[in-house]
Formats: sequence, C-alpha cells, structure tokens
Amino acid sequence: METLAKLELHPLSEIGNLKVHGRTTGRLSPLTLFWTGSAVEFNVKGSELWVEVEADYDTYEPWISILINSVPVSRQMITAGRSFICVFRGMNKDVVKNVRIVRDMQAMSGDPGSSLQIHAVKSDGDFLPVEEKPYKIEFIGDSITSGEGAIGARTEEDWIPMWCSAIHNYSMMTASRLHADYRILSQSGWGVLTSWDNNPRANMPDYYEKVCGILTGKKNEALGAFEENDFESWQPDIVVVNLGTNDGGAFYSPEWKDEVTGEIHKQRLNEDGSYHEEDLQSFENAAVRFLMKIRTYNKQAKIVWAYGMLGIPMMPAIYRAVDAYKQKTGDQNVSVFQLPNMTEQTTGARSHPGATAHEKAAEELSAYIRDLL
Amino acid sequence: METLAKLELHPLSEIGNLKVHGRTTGRLSPLTLFWTGSAVEFNVKGSELWVEVEADYDTYEPWISILINSVPVSRQMITAGRSFICVFRGMNKDVVKNVRIVRDMQAMSGDPGSSLQIHAVKSDGDFLPVEEKPYKIEFIGDSITSGEGAIGARTEEDWIPMWCSAIHNYSMMTASRLHADYRILSQSGWGVLTSWDNNPRANMPDYYEKVCGILTGKKNEALGAFEENDFESWQPDIVVVNLGTNDGGAFYSPEWKDEVTGEIHKQRLNEDGSYHEEDLQSFENAAVRFLMKIRTYNKQAKIVWAYGMLGIPMMPAIYRAVDAYKQKTGDQNVSVFQLPNMTEQTTGARSHPGATAHEKAAEELSAYIRDLL
Amino acid sequence: METLAKLELHPLSEIGNLKVHGRTTGRLSPLTLFWTGSAVEFNVKGSELWVEVEADYDTYEPWISILINSVPVSRQMITAGRSFICVFRGMNKDVVKNVRIVRDMQAMSGDPGSSLQIHAVKSDGDFLPVEEKPYKIEFIGDSITSGEGAIGARTEEDWIPMWCSAIHNYSMMTASRLHADYRILSQSGWGVLTSWDNNPRANMPDYYEKVCGILTGKKNEALGAFEENDFESWQPDIVVVNLGTNDGGAFYSPEWKDEVTGEIHKQRLNEDGSYHEEDLQSFENAAVRFLMKIRTYNKQAKIVWAYGMLGIPMMPAIYRAVDAYKQKTGDQNVSVFQLPNMTEQTTGARSHPGATAHEKAAEELSAYIRDLL
Amino acid sequence: METLAKLELHPLSEIGNLKVHGRTTGRLSPLTLFWTGSAVEFNVKGSELWVEVEADYDTYEPWISILINSVPVSRQMITAGRSFICVFRGMNKDVVKNVRIVRDMQAMSGDPGSSLQIHAVKSDGDFLPVEEKPYKIEFIGDSITSGEGAIGARTEEDWIPMWCSAIHNYSMMTASRLHADYRILSQSGWGVLTSWDNNPRANMPDYYEKVCGILTGKKNEALGAFEENDFESWQPDIVVVNLGTNDGGAFYSPEWKDEVTGEIHKQRLNEDGSYHEEDLQSFENAAVRFLMKIRTYNKQAKIVWAYGMLGIPMMPAIYRAVDAYKQKTGDQNVSVFQLPNMTEQTTGARSHPGATAHEKAAEELSAYIRDLL
Repeated sequence: METLAKLELHPLSEIGNLKVHGRTTGRLSPLTLFWTGSAVEFNVKGSELWVEVEADYDTYEPWISILINSVPVSRQMITAGRSFICVFRGMNKDVVKNVRIVRDMQAMSGDPGSSLQIHAVKSDGDFLPVEEKPYKIEFIGDSITSGEGAIGARTEEDWIPMWCSAIHNYSMMTASRLHADYRILSQSGWGVLTSWDNNPRANMPDYYEKVCGILTGKKNEALGAFEENDFESWQPDIVVVNLGTNDGGAFYSPEWKDEVTGEIHKQRLNEDGSYHEEDLQSFENAAVRFLMKIRTYNKQAKIVWAYGMLGIPMMPAIYRAVDAYKQKTGDQNVSVFQLPNMTEQTTGARSHPGATAHEKAAEELSAYIRDLL
Repeated sequence: METLAKLELHPLSEIGNLKVHGRTTGRLSPLTLFWTGSAVEFNVKGSELWVEVEADYDTYEPWISILINSVPVSRQMITAGRSFICVFRGMNKDVVKNVRIVRDMQAMSGDPGSSLQIHAVKSDGDFLPVEEKPYKIEFIGDSITSGEGAIGARTEEDWIPMWCSAIHNYSMMTASRLHADYRILSQSGWGVLTSWDNNPRANMPDYYEKVCGILTGKKNEALGAFEENDFESWQPDIVVVNLGTNDGGAFYSPEWKDEVTGEIHKQRLNEDGSYHEEDLQSFENAAVRFLMKIRTYNKQAKIVWAYGMLGIPMMPAIYRAVDAYKQKTGDQNVSVFQLPNMTEQTTGARSHPGATAHEKAAEELSAYIRDLL
Repeated sequence: METLAKLELHPLSEIGNLKVHGRTTGRLSPLTLFWTGSAVEFNVKGSELWVEVEADYDTYEPWISILINSVPVSRQMITAGRSFICVFRGMNKDVVKNVRIVRDMQAMSGDPGSSLQIHAVKSDGDFLPVEEKPYKIEFIGDSITSGEGAIGARTEEDWIPMWCSAIHNYSMMTASRLHADYRILSQSGWGVLTSWDNNPRANMPDYYEKVCGILTGKKNEALGAFEENDFESWQPDIVVVNLGTNDGGAFYSPEWKDEVTGEIHKQRLNEDGSYHEEDLQSFENAAVRFLMKIRTYNKQAKIVWAYGMLGIPMMPAIYRAVDAYKQKTGDQNVSVFQLPNMTEQTTGARSHPGATAHEKAAEELSAYIRDLL
Repeated sequence: METLAKLELHPLSEIGNLKVHGRTTGRLSPLTLFWTGSAVEFNVKGSELWVEVEADYDTYEPWISILINSVPVSRQMITAGRSFICVFRGMNKDVVKNVRIVRDMQAMSGDPGSSLQIHAVKSDGDFLPVEEKPYKIEFIGDSITSGEGAIGARTEEDWIPMWCSAIHNYSMMTASRLHADYRILSQSGWGVLTSWDNNPRANMPDYYEKVCGILTGKKNEALGAFEENDFESWQPDIVVVNLGTNDGGAFYSPEWKDEVTGEIHKQRLNEDGSYHEEDLQSFENAAVRFLMKIRTYNKQAKIVWAYGMLGIPMMPAIYRAVDAYKQKTGDQNVSVFQLPNMTEQTTGARSHPGATAHEKAAEELSAYIRDLL
C-alpha cells in the first residue's frame, strides 16, 4: 500500500479557509454537525484528503455524503467510534477540488446518544478560500425536508437513517438551482402545533431559537445544541417553512398522553369528517406565532410557506394563518406556495416522496423563489 | 452505542445461500472480486448485517457499492486493510432484505498490488436462497464498460477509481431491464488488437480464457487470477462485445515501443486521413479470432458486437469482421448493434459517457437483446 | 375524381346516435357551437364522412379541429359561408370510427357576427351509439382556458383565433386523463369581478345561467345564446373555476370608463404596491357570489378553484373567498388547487402557456381531481 | 363578413420573392408539388393571405399543412377542385410572417390521377425575400420517410393519406435541427431492389434522375413529373438514404408476378430462415449501383445510409454494399448510420413509427450529420 507519509494533519480549528454549513455552535474542536444537510466545505489544492469523523449513537447511526465539485461520489454509514475516512487520493495535486462532507441524516430527537463530529483533516495540499454564494435560504420542515424515503425501494418500511437523504432532497436541489447557501431544520413526524401523533411537544417552533433545540439529553447539552443560535451571523434571504403535513395527520391519529403528567392532546375531527374548528384554530394560532418568531430573528427574509408534496388538506388553514399574521403585523413579506403533489410514479420508500418528486418540487419552488429574489 | 452481542460471524464459505457475481476462482475463503460489477449477493432475514472486506493496493484503491433490494444506498472507497463494514442495522428482523455488495471499480491491470476480498459477514439473521435470474449476459468492453466518467463533474480529468461506476453503467442497466444476471470483463484503454496507445499486449482477447488474465504479478497469481475460467459453470445467453473504440484511437496515437525488446507497434493512417488498409485488416483479423474464441467457450450464446457510444469510425471494419467470421464458420448467431452516441448533454466526467448516456444505451441495447432472447 | 354517389345526406336532427359536447340550445337544425371545445361526436361505420358547416363573422373567424379515434388529424380555419368538409374517405367501411368535430376557438364576445354551425353530414355508413363517459367536468376560465397561445411561435403578438387551441389545452387533457366528458365556458381577458382592463361587465359570473350569455347582438339572440341553460340535462361531477388572473391584472391597468354613462371602474393599488383592501374585498365578494351561483345550478358537483398558471398573486384572496363561502353556506365541497406556473421553457405564443405548460397543469390537476372522484 | 376588397391576386409566377421546396419542374403557372414535404414559402408583410390550390385524384386525396413562423397551425385534406384557402387574416400588417404551405402526403404512384397544385395567392401585403438556409439535405426513403403512421391512433389500419405526415417526420425534424433546407423522395413500400412484395419495378433508384419518376400516367407526364431533374440548381450537402426496410420484407413476402409478361420475382429465404445469398447479393449490387448514381448527380454531397427504425436485418448487407462501393470507386464520402429502433412506446399508427420515434431518430441523425458538416 502506498505511503501516506507526506500528509499533514490539520485540526479544523487551524484551517482558516473552510466553510461550515448548517446551524452550529461555532466550535471547531471538534465541529458537531447537528442537522441534515449540514456540512463542512473545503477548496483543497492537493492530491489526497482524509477527514477524521467521530460518531456515536444508541439507536440511529449517522450517515454522510461526500460531494466533489458539487457531484455526490460517496455515501456511507458512520459506525460508532473515531476514524479517518479517505475523501480522495491520487488526484492532480495542482488542481483545486471543492469538497463537501455532508451529514446525510436528520438531527435525531429520538436518540439522545446520536452524534456526528468532525475533528480534523489530513492532506498534502493547501486549503484555499471557499466562495460565498449570493443567496442564503433556510428550510424548516418535517420528514419531507429530512428526505425520508428519497432513497430506497418502495417496499421499504423500516424507519432507519438509510432511507433519508439530504442530497436527493428538494432543499438542496432548490438551493443549487438558485446558487444559494442553505440550512435545514427538520424533524420527521413533527409539526407546527403537534406531531403526527398529537404530541404537543414535538413542534418545531418551540425550539427555533436554539442551535438544535429539538435534541435532548446531557450529551447534546454539552455539545451546545441548546445554546442560543447566533442569528446575526447568518441572515437568510428566504425562509421556507414546509410544515403542516403532520399537523394534518394528527386529526386522524389517536390522542397523545403524557405518561407522567397525564396530560392529553388530540386534534379532533367532526362527525362529518371535517376538522374540528377549535383545533384547527389552534393550529392557525401556532402558525401565526411561528411566523412572528421567524420574523423576530430574520428581519429581512422573505418567508415562504411551501406545502403540498403529500396533499393539501391544511392549505386553507395555512392561508388563513398567513392572512392573520399579515393583518396583525402589516408584514407583507410572507407568502404561500403549493408544492407539486407526489404521484404514483414519484413515490419513494416508506410512502414518502422519491427523488423525482423532490426534483419536481425543487423545479417549481426555485422558480417561485427566483421571482422573490 | 448499541451492543452487537447477538451478531454471529459467518465466513462466506459457510453460508450455503449466497450468490457470487462475476468471474472468480470459486474460492470463498476469502472471495476475491476481480472485475467491476462482480459482487456477492444475499437474502438476509435479520435486523443487522456487516461484511468483512480486505483491500490492498499500490496506487488504485477499490470502491464498493451496496444495493439493498436493488437500490444503491451506499458507495465508498475501501482503504487498505481488513475491516467490517456495516451494511444495515436496526431493520425489521422478520423481513428478508436482498443485499448486493458490488465491486465498483474495474480490474486494475495497472496496479499489481490492488485487490478486494470479502471474508465473512456478521448478522443476527438467516441467509435464505437467492433466486436465479432467467437470463445470463456477459459484457466485454473497455472504459465505457468500466463506467469511466459515469460519476463525477465534467471538469474531472484525473484517472482515478472514484469516477468509474459499475452502477450508473449500461451493462447493469441492460441486465436489470432484461432481468438477467451478468458479468463484466472490461479494461479502460484496451482494445481488440491494441490499446488506444498501440500496445499490442493490451488487448482483451488474449486473456479471455483466464479468470482475470489481464492482471499481473505474483499476488494476483496467488489469488487465482490466471487460472482457467470455468466456462461450464456459467454459460451466458448473450455475450456483448463493446470493443473497437480504443482500436480506432490507436490510429491517431504515437507508436508503442517495448522498451525491453525494442518491438514497435503502430496502427497507421494514410496521408488522406483514412485508416491504413493493412492495419485495419489486422484489426478485423483480430476481431474474427476473438469471435471464434468466444464461440469456443460459449456454444449457445448469441454474440452481439455493440459499439458506438463514442462514435462509429470502426463500424465498417466491425461489420466486415463479423461477415468474415460468419463466412468462415457458418455461425449465424452473431450480430452488430450500434449504440447511441454520447451527446453534449450526456457527457460525464473525463469526456466519457455520463449516467444519462448509459441509460440511453441500455434502453436501446436491452430492446435489441430482448428480441434475441 | 372519385364519385361520391353513394353518400347519403343526414341532417343532424335525423341522426339519433350523436353526442353534442358543450352548452347548446338543444337545437340541431342546425347545431350552433358556441364555446371552445364544444363539439359533435359520432361513431361512424362507413368508408367516408363529410360534415356540412356554416360560418360567419365580422372579425374573428372560427376554427375547427377534427379528432379520429381521439387523435387530432386536422385543424382548419372555417371561412364565411356554408360548405361540406371531408372528414375521412377511403377507409374500411366495416370498421367503426369515432369522430369528433371540435370548435377550436372561444366564444367571441368581441364579434357579434361570429358564428359556427353544423347542419348535416354525408356518409355511406351507419351511425352507432356514442358511449357516455363515467364523469363530467365543467371548466370556467379565461384566456388560459381558451388555450390562448397554446399554438404558435413565441414571437406571435396578434390577438387572432389561430393561436387559440381547444386541443393543446389543459381542460381537454385533464378530461382525457380522467375519462370524462367536459364543457368549457371561457373568455380571454375576463374575470370574476372585472376584465383585465377593469371593465365590470366583462365578468363570467353574470352570464352563467345562459347558454352562452357573454355573447351579444340580435344574431346570437336568434341562435339562442341567451336562453336559459338546461342544467338538469348535464350535471357535472366537477366544476373547475380557473379565474382570477385577469382580476389580478386589473389592479395594474388604467381605469375603465363607460363612454355612454360615464361610469368608471378601477381596482386600485396602494402606494406600497399592495392591493387596495376594499377593491380586493370586492373581488372576494364576487367570488363568493359566483360560488353560490355555481352551487345553485350544480347541487352535487365538487367545485375546484384552480389557479396559478400565470402566477399566484390573487391566491390569498381566492382562499379567503372560498373560506367565506364555506362559512356562509356550510358547503364543504369546494377547494382550491394551485396550478403549476408557466416557465421560460413552457411559454407559448403571446406570453401565454404553451402546450407543455398545459400538459403539466393537466397532469397535476387530473391527479388532484382523481382523488375527489 | 369582412370585406376582402383590398386583397390583390398574385399568380405565383409573378411573385419574385418565394421559395419552392422539393423537386419541381421549375414551372410556377401553376406550381405542382409532387413529393411529400415539398412546399412553397413566403415572407409576407401584410394582414391577410390566401392561397389558391387545386387538387385532383381518383383514390388518394392530397393533404397540406401550413406553418406560420415555423410552427404548424393547420392541416387539412384538399378535396378535388380549385379553391382559395385562407392562410391567415387579421394580423398586424406591418409584421413579416414566414409562411410555408407544405404538401403533407407522399407522391402517389398508386393513383395516376392524384395531383396538388398551387396557382396563386391573394394578399394585402408585400412579399419579401426568403432566406437561404446554410445547408441542403436530400432524403430518399420509403414509408418511414413518408411519415406513414406518424399521425393517428395505434389501432388505425387503413392505408390512407390521413395517417402520413411530412411534419411529424424525422426528415423535417433533422433539417430543422441543422438549419437546413431539405427535399424528400419517398414511397411507401418501395425499396432499393424491389418493393416489400417483390415487385422489381417498385424501386427508388430507377427513377432518381426524373423530377418525380415514380409517378405514372399521361397527366403526370403533362405536369412534367418525368422530366430530367435539374440537379445543378440544388446540390445537397448531405444525401440521406433510408432504404432497405422493404427489401428486407420482400424475403418474407410471396413472389411477385407480372400479369402481362409472366415475369416473376422473389427474394428467397434459405431453409434455416437466413437470406438466400444470391438474392441478398442482388440487393447489395442494387445498392452499389444506386450509390454510384447518387454520386453522379451529387458530386460534393456526403452520403449517409441511415437505416434501423423498423429493425436492422439488412444492416450487414448495407455495410457490405457501402464497402463494395468505396472499394470500387475510392469514394470515402459515404457512411452508414443506424437509426434508433421504434419501441412499444413510440409506435404510431399502422405499426409504423409514431411522432416520438421520429423525434428520437432526428435527435440521433442530426447529431451524426452535424459532425459531417
């Protein structure tokens, strides 16, 4: 085997020219990648590059994808432990390669032990500056935005990280079409008011201010997940909210019960099958509050509520919420956009949108956003 | 991290129900995967599966792709050493998963130290029988059949394993459309008579009888690469020969010189730019001899000379060679099929066909073969 | 020239087995086709068929398209006068052909002299029964539903019938995908409250009860255009309302003035460029009233407000109107669906959706309606 | 109805600025359009245009298509007699429209009475010069090049002009992609040596020198069909020969017998189903002679034998013929190109290529020709 003798170890914190994608604490020793689609990016002028990753978990292992010059070339499960992964070798040392190491799995609220960190790189090359993209987009969503089912056979039914993709994902595709940097905050099953199974704690808005507030546990606390997010450092031009699908599902799910307090929650259906007005109003109120919170932290962003890849039953409520928000605040920079529905042909694994459904969504959403920019 | 305590180690040689793809020696302790697209396949009823791989190389490292239920979910470089790779975990233990571990890089004639082996698997599950497909296809080709450039940005110019794909490859796509098992013999730059740079030793026909005769070195000898291939055990219904592209290129390349013997070879152009008739005849003679050799070992197969993804300058010579072969042998089961040319839009990395070009080729070739079956 | 001696003349009124598409008076001596997409359909078992048409106009001539076995084979301008047009000849007389003669131009409110009538057919064959389709859909729209720009080069700017298509039209495509009979009521430039240029008389709702109330003049009165439509005879399963695009445009157009009465109308913009709330409310009120009117005449239909092929600025108002209608009536069988926006690639003539844009709209709309049926 | 008073009659012979497509006699009083795809083209600066056509036939009526600014807007059967057809009206009189009136049906060897002529136009506008395209292509073919089946339902079986299209035709599409003027010589059922049913007179080569030599009868003689073609006036850059499909079919058809002379012809199959060598050689000889004839009249053209939309059984013979021609003449400007086969999805009417099959063929053929130009 070829010698690696000439490679030099660079802790991330000592590389000036790198770009971190996704909400983080700012720490680089090591860098913790919390959210799906979060990444570290380099421009390497060298023949070989290794990256030192560390993973842990109780249940759900992290995955990464590697992009060279914007093309995905590798995707792999990261099993527990700390190790070096070779990104490339044997390349022309005088040519600059753009490299992106992407966390290819959502933040795991269901596994407090799950973590993915990047410590260092080894290379024989130099690290050159990484360009800023002209735009910034933040995506806030659920399983759709986590890319659940975007990889895998249609028959797959297990809920495991393998079927989730940050790459075959409308968020990355939309950002790519618009030449935008982007961040994702997403969690399968979660909603604006409750999760698909009526859990009122599994809502995205409550945790928006934190770096990755949906996580739990001491370990994540130590990693900084619950720190205040530094909004000033990354102000998006566009915030896409793709929520509501699970809030709609909650009306058809059994009640949720807090086993400790006995607290119960249930979004109710009327006898004729329509949504109970009071509960629907609760959803709308939660949506209004979330828009107000988003605006608090993103003064200039155009906010787009994009919804519809798995049907549009909540769309009237979403429009009412956006209307109510505008009325209340006078803020006109919020709009609603219907995403194209998944079809029989574009279904992926776990009855979720496949890669083609994500492509169609990205095509339409990026055209809509282009007009806003 | 979750315990792995219940996993049981199974050396490959002790698993009755597995299927090996690609030419091998028959040995399973360990299994050496020589050719691109060669693989080991399981039907695993269990929640977790690891595979123990061993790689070595001087220059060119091997890559693998993992397919679960026929869908590619992982692709990774295998660095030197012996280690366990987790294929899946956390899945429903009562459901059978079809798993294929595919060598995603061509046999490396240029690196006698390069090897990829599979020793064992670990799982908590049972290994069920793997079905036989109704058809068998053998592909013999060059860089196109090695999938060179089918992955990667258009700007890529390095000759490295990363840009080669056994998955985004017309051979796998053709076999998949026809529900066929398949094997690949391929080598970038090689031809029927000579390589692209006029090396008369870099021809596929001379090594056809061996398991993987294009390799060199003591190590490969020890692995069994130069053993006689057991043709009886796997008789294809179709043999696809996709060669000629490099033989055509040789006319435009400088002469080749054997530094030891002083031997020189050069396919010559006439002054008007046409191929020198004598040299073209040498190509045709080599093609006839190769067809005769293929027929010797594959008595029943329909042989299809499929050519054209990078232009068709050698097509008249190929037709003449097939005519001459038929005349000489009376064998009518040989035909020629023109593959669709790569276009500006379908170009991949290294000026080679991209994934879309491979898809178009597979669409047309599989339709042609379907009529033969 | 071949003799036509064996052809027999059949006034439409004497053919029992025919099917008339589109709103008409019920008269067949002759049949007046008022709306685009209206048609007469036969199943002819014979070798030859001619149709006797009569056209007149001051400005805008009618066009027809002919479909044989559901495939468009001919499209032609019908110049003034009465004449026989050969639909087919020389065909196998023992085979049944399904024939549809389609008016391929919208009702012409701008030309009181424009008319298209069908008097009779000549054939050597028999007229067999025409099947009923399982569903019925009514489309109410503007230039988009008139297929304006769906034919012709992008550079075309003239407003003439030639560029309008009932065939390359999302309405026909949607009905075809759903195996539905359909009717169109459409008028370029018109809206719910006003036309694109603020004319409050150019609204579709006021004329909904009549056979073709948007027309004017004595001649059309004589033809029965202003008679009450017989709603009982054709009850749609789905009513698609594709209006709002021109109501949105009115905010950006100069005021309209009735030269006789001096009456003025203008949908106003606020100084910040947003829609004047009062005027937007007028639109919403008009939409609510229109929904109530549609429901009056179509008790069982699911009503779908489908909007978005030329942008979605009016969508919030449409959602509010539908909400208000539901609140007021308790009727839940009304919903809103966003159609995919025309893109740079799918633009047709006159800056309107081209055939590809109509296909995309039909793909999404038909999938949405399929779930309602 | 609007007055036509201001229109001025222009006999074709008096319009300097017009362009005639397709082989003709040069006469314009009237212009006879013999071959499919032949046409007259104008650049009209005016608001209205009519064209005076005259048709006759015993069995097969002609059809025309009208293109405005390169987009097909009308297609209609021309019944017997002489009449004016309105091409456009009501357009901006200051804008120039490019207009092409295309014969949309093959020359009819089976109907000596069939003819289509253009006498004059009426317009209020001026006729401006029509540009020369940078390239010229001649297509010589059979039913495929006649566009048989490119329009119509798959179930259609009648052999009638309605199902033939010069527009949804690989020849027009290829020329359009290459910005080339083009001519077609085509006849359904005909071949190089014989027709599909072994008639040795139904071969294209014998009639190549004449304007439209495949026709018969006194009337066509009077129209000039049998005059020598003026090759000097239109020298193509490319000649595409798409013949061989019917020559292949002849091997499977019953013998042909001349009822008058008793002469018999039959291309024979061997007992094992292969082509009889002697008869195949006759085909090859005919192909060689045809290439020599084409070269005689087209000194500079690159000749492309393009074959394969309905299978490739004759391809080896075509390659041998081209080889033999090159050997005999030393002419290297002849090559063979395999067209993509029609598939289940792309089949049109009468088991012939549909519009999509023609598009695929044009995509590949135009790319091939582009490299030759």
